[in-house]
Amino acid sequence: MTTAELELANTTVADPRTGASMKALVYHGAGKHAWEDKPRPMIQEPGDAIVRITTSTICGTDLHILKGDLPAVTDGRILGHEGIGVIEQVGAGVSEFHVGDKVIISCVTACLKCDFCKRSMYSHCRHGGWILGYTLDGTQAEYVRIPQADGSLYLFPPGADEESMVMLSDILPTGFECGVLNGQVKPGDTVAIVGAGPVGLAVLLTAQFYSPAAIFMIDLDDKRLAVAKKFGATNLVNSSNGKAAQQVMELTEGAGVDVAIEAVGLPATFAICQAIVAAGGRIANVGVHGKPVELHMEKLWDRNIAITTRLVDAVTTPVLLKVVRSGKLQPSKLVTHRFAMHDILKAYDTFGNAAKEGALKVILTNKAD
Amino acid sequence: MTTAELELANTTVADPRTGASMKALVYHGAGKHAWEDKPRPMIQEPGDAIVRITTSTICGTDLHILKGDLPAVTDGRILGHEGIGVIEQVGAGVSEFHVGDKVIISCVTACLKCDFCKRSMYSHCRHGGWILGYTLDGTQAEYVRIPQADGSLYLFPPGADEESMVMLSDILPTGFECGVLNGQVKPGDTVAIVGAGPVGLAVLLTAQFYSPAAIFMIDLDDKRLAVAKKFGATNLVNSSNGKAAQQVMELTEGAGVDVAIEAVGLPATFAICQAIVAAGGRIANVGVHGKPVELHMEKLWDRNIAITTRLVDAVTTPVLLKVVRSGKLQPSKLVTHRFAMHDILKAYDTFGNAAKEGALKVILTNKAD
Amino acid sequence: MTTAELELANTTVADPRTGASMKALVYHGAGKHAWEDKPRPMIQEPGDAIVRITTSTICGTDLHILKGDLPAVTDGRILGHEGIGVIEQVGAGVSEFHVGDKVIISCVTACLKCDFCKRSMYSHCRHGGWILGYTLDGTQAEYVRIPQADGSLYLFPPGADEESMVMLSDILPTGFECGVLNGQVKPGDTVAIVGAGPVGLAVLLTAQFYSPAAIFMIDLDDKRLAVAKKFGATNLVNSSNGKAAQQVMELTEGAGVDVAIEAVGLPATFAICQAIVAAGGRIANVGVHGKPVELHMEKLWDRNIAITTRLVDAVTTPVLLKVVRSGKLQPSKLVTHRFAMHDILKAYDTFGNAAKEGALKVILTNKAD
Amino acid sequence: MTTAELELANTTVADPRTGASMKALVYHGAGKHAWEDKPRPMIQEPGDAIVRITTSTICGTDLHILKGDLPAVTDGRILGHEGIGVIEQVGAGVSEFHVGDKVIISCVTACLKCDFCKRSMYSHCRHGGWILGYTLDGTQAEYVRIPQADGSLYLFPPGADEESMVMLSDILPTGFECGVLNGQVKPGDTVAIVGAGPVGLAVLLTAQFYSPAAIFMIDLDDKRLAVAKKFGATNLVNSSNGKAAQQVMELTEGAGVDVAIEAVGLPATFAICQAIVAAGGRIANVGVHGKPVELHMEKLWDRNIAITTRLVDAVTTPVLLKVVRSGKLQPSKLVTHRFAMHDILKAYDTFGNAAKEGALKVILTNKAD
Repeated sequence: MTTAELELANTTVADPRTGASMKALVYHGAGKHAWEDKPRPMIQEPGDAIVRITTSTICGTDLHILKGDLPAVTDGRILGHEGIGVIEQVGAGVSEFHVGDKVIISCVTACLKCDFCKRSMYSHCRHGGWILGYTLDGTQAEYVRIPQADGSLYLFPPGADEESMVMLSDILPTGFECGVLNGQVKPGDTVAIVGAGPVGLAVLLTAQFYSPAAIFMIDLDDKRLAVAKKFGATNLVNSSNGKAAQQVMELTEGAGVDVAIEAVGLPATFAICQAIVAAGGRIANVGVHGKPVELHMEKLWDRNIAITTRLVDAVTTPVLLKVVRSGKLQPSKLVTHRFAMHDILKAYDTFGNAAKEGALKVILTNKAD
Repeated sequence: MTTAELELANTTVADPRTGASMKALVYHGAGKHAWEDKPRPMIQEPGDAIVRITTSTICGTDLHILKGDLPAVTDGRILGHEGIGVIEQVGAGVSEFHVGDKVIISCVTACLKCDFCKRSMYSHCRHGGWILGYTLDGTQAEYVRIPQADGSLYLFPPGADEESMVMLSDILPTGFECGVLNGQVKPGDTVAIVGAGPVGLAVLLTAQFYSPAAIFMIDLDDKRLAVAKKFGATNLVNSSNGKAAQQVMELTEGAGVDVAIEAVGLPATFAICQAIVAAGGRIANVGVHGKPVELHMEKLWDRNIAITTRLVDAVTTPVLLKVVRSGKLQPSKLVTHRFAMHDILKAYDTFGNAAKEGALKVILTNKAD
Repeated sequence: MTTAELELANTTVADPRTGASMKALVYHGAGKHAWEDKPRPMIQEPGDAIVRITTSTICGTDLHILKGDLPAVTDGRILGHEGIGVIEQVGAGVSEFHVGDKVIISCVTACLKCDFCKRSMYSHCRHGGWILGYTLDGTQAEYVRIPQADGSLYLFPPGADEESMVMLSDILPTGFECGVLNGQVKPGDTVAIVGAGPVGLAVLLTAQFYSPAAIFMIDLDDKRLAVAKKFGATNLVNSSNGKAAQQVMELTEGAGVDVAIEAVGLPATFAICQAIVAAGGRIANVGVHGKPVELHMEKLWDRNIAITTRLVDAVTTPVLLKVVRSGKLQPSKLVTHRFAMHDILKAYDTFGNAAKEGALKVILTNKAD
Repeated sequence: MTTAELELANTTVADPRTGASMKALVYHGAGKHAWEDKPRPMIQEPGDAIVRITTSTICGTDLHILKGDLPAVTDGRILGHEGIGVIEQVGAGVSEFHVGDKVIISCVTACLKCDFCKRSMYSHCRHGGWILGYTLDGTQAEYVRIPQADGSLYLFPPGADEESMVMLSDILPTGFECGVLNGQVKPGDTVAIVGAGPVGLAVLLTAQFYSPAAIFMIDLDDKRLAVAKKFGATNLVNSSNGKAAQQVMELTEGAGVDVAIEAVGLPATFAICQAIVAAGGRIANVGVHGKPVELHMEKLWDRNIAITTRLVDAVTTPVLLKVVRSGKLQPSKLVTHRFAMHDILKAYDTFGNAAKEGALKVILTNKAD
């Protein structure tokens, strides 16, 4: 494809060679976005696959993009980094997938060949990482082009349900890798999760893979805490009175928690984690931070703790697939609302008013006609 | 021993029952200390041992105590938490050591029985931890009482030299555990050590156990950097121009270092570590901090890094003993000055003017008459 | 206590100083044993505790001893290495327990001070290890002397039930440490356990701490397999037709299992493990072996596997206590029969005919009068 | 390329389209091989690269092939799985390498995409593994086709020497991964290596990355032991008197070794490892075995040991490159003889009489004209 063709592809609504177009959720700068016509994506590199989306969902990050918080996202970008679909076309270099395969799309694109990929840090892939719906057109559309397809897709297990499987695109590996694995949750541990939003709940669900003795869930919203209770939290702490840390210390008889998981991304919630981590414990950060935090090294220097950060690598997708298929985890529990893809603007409204609507994950479906 | 007897012991200069006294370096509040008479210590608990000190040394922490920076240290305290000596007496519960054994005294006292000790976190021992020369009389004396002796002493290897072995009391395990092990130094790694004082140099020496490819040493003092060069640093960075981080980034072609080890304890040096750690890397803190630091979570949240803190547990003493005995490490390299114990005030003067005197570790010897 | 007194203690049925006696199950050589009078044990070393037994149980190893298979067990030995009781007396060196404390007795005695204990290998403790009911009088009695009490006892959690807690003396840490931890069971793994006796079932219960996707249980006895099903096994394989390995390979579509755990101790069952372990997998041995096995290095040398052996260290007792207290595990499930301690000969009959009686763990209780 | 073309390529000595031919060492069944004309290899798959060989070497496995011990190697096969060369041509799917790049060829071919590659078990790659000079034409030639080039080649570091770098193709990662990493060699450890051939010496060189306190080298040949001494072994044990195990036990005062590494592949040498491994130790197998061994589970079941097997994955090549470039390791030490590639039959003679010739690694060079 020449540059001229590429420009054409970017400015017309239909594939210039096939005339094929599709609908997609397109970002046009802060506060402006629409469900509109775009040309269908085509194979551009040997490693590409074209996937027809059947199911997608919305992430909290998408809301930030719509507000204009992520300047790397430019006018015309199709959003979305989560999805299930069927492969329509593959490039010559794709060896692990074939036309007709139903697949889970990972939010992280991995070339598998660079130094970071070889160290299982797909998030820092030199040819990928998080690019879908960010610097590359994404999955809230009828079709998507997936580069490095062999490293970025997973076979959809026969008989599985799409609502569960789409949780493997991002939210489950995020909670599991950044929260549970980095936090080294172990049998018998006392764990605190700060933030009972969808990601915090994904931490909660996957932390239970390791049989901790207690899981404290900390949030401002009693409704979310009530969901956490149903999902396996052993203790609920409403932090709106500013005394969450104090309460956790009392509940642990002054010992603090073995693992404190930050799933919000604010200085105040990070501060709670510092205040409650036991000597020898871990603080695992999951939240996206926009500002520096104060780290109390004058209190922590001799406490034998570890603090970890991580952008999801989505390297645990094969493991998560096995656990979900075994029936030990029902990720579709996280789904609260369902929309047809063409009603995505309504879906965004609901998800954008999560507290009022009681929304966790909102499912988008491209219905076959 | 009754309370009355204990009080007596604390106020007279001789053992009330034996009349035996000794000389010791005694703290009398900020800026006041003396080499003076004290009663010889006696067995108080079944786990105690009385050790006649042959060699001791001074730690940077001792200087902080003399300045009054550590309010837990009270008037009358004998300082010192490092030493070699010979056991004069043991309590009924001591099973691993006998009168006449030559021993290395660990700076950390470990009961071995509590939950922390069972998890190899001797630093947080519920009946010990760092207490010698802090909340309990220490080793800068002719005799010392060592509680929990079975967990706090190590047999002096036959034929070893005392100057090397006294480095196992504190400085080598500190550098090794807090810096090298927590930093997970691995073959081929690029390591930066911020601070070329005695502890930073102990990090440097023990980091080489794992064959890193490069070790950057960062300090304000060219003399100390020159020592680091002799001790195995591959690159020297003088940070006095405020461009240390920039230089390290250039030297690593923008990649940063796999492990950044903080061996100073200041916000500025911690900031250097944050600025140079590579994605996927570790920041291991060794320095004692007195103030909070700014943690740039807005830059680090997606960098897959780990930050660790630790008070030395001295659990690696057996391993360090094996390595030193094998000849792979000559810790006596760190010794720059030697004094008779009764000249300890001069020794403190020299150590207190380390930069001017070129002092690293200062040896104190109780000469047999 | 002088040697003469000790001899006396060993030959009369009552404490020579107090005249106190007790009842105990005493071994008198292969095939001979009795519930008979013995002197009550007394404190002999500063680290000792005397425990009044409230609950005990019988281990498969006890049956081997009665048959004369363990020549280290001599005439007059009181058997039993599992138990719950109340401390009647402590030596001067015991610091963590007090008279009146209700305790769990670990089958492994740990001094905590020797090189092996410091490396958490209590099983190889230079002053302990497995000695209770083996080279030292044990717990199938009214009283027992526990040496190294601080390392060998655990506080009984308030409100817990004794039938569950006595499973922490041996069988649960054995299954967990030798099988699950050494086998490195991970979320999503496929695990096979060869042997559905009490220890194999303890492996099964504790393997579930890590959420494996499938657990194959292999045994000759359909009744035991049925129990395994109730305890969480996902697939049952009766090996009596000699085709267990073949069946497992078919069930795994030729891949084999990630972890094969041997809980029998015979060449044939070890051979099954070799035949079913996947490339990259682990074989964790739990069974006690009396003969060499054939290791097929000509097939395994290039398969990237690990084979582990272990005598239970009982270092995970604190973790198991936390998990049991959290309600994630009900070890009393393993109990099938209950007897008063004075009916221990009947209890042995039942346990010795485990297949016929459907016996797993048999509880023995010293009823308060 | 059609099947017909492929057949043509396999039966004529020149590329049917280009007429280009080359020289290569070709196997023609047990005992028969020749340096003869073959067609130059061509790109067949998008992932292929054609490499012009500059340096190669001979492996002990090549001798086994020539004897007919590996029936998977068929008549007409070009041998060799080690080499350095320059890329002449790349397929459309190769992204990490370009024509003109100088490269190290790994003995293991890795697609990077399959489940085994994603778990860093390249040796079991579903599209690769060890195939070069085995089931695919190899490197003892003027040119070679490297499939899955992005996963199977490494950039030759500027300024490095080819004799050192060709040791990274196989022998260094084999010794390091199968011996040192699997054996978990740690600072202060006592290590025994059974077999002082080239692979055993590679273990010896790379074990020193971790500063063990002692390395015992065990072999039948005093000349090889003398080499081991120069390479860093601390103790030499000639096993020809059948008392190697006894000697090691005496040298370790009955404790045995922390790590026993088998680098021969015979029941007798594996037996030595079993006899000398300490409680809590590891046996790491490196040797290629042709027969079962007797595993003394009746002695080892309670010794807390681990036995590992592994086919080299060559995943540590990037790490080894860093260590070699840092100057900590000079792999060219292993080179004893040098030949022009066209004298390869003489090179095989020398290598085949290694004991007599004192041969370790034999270098083969394609001299530019």
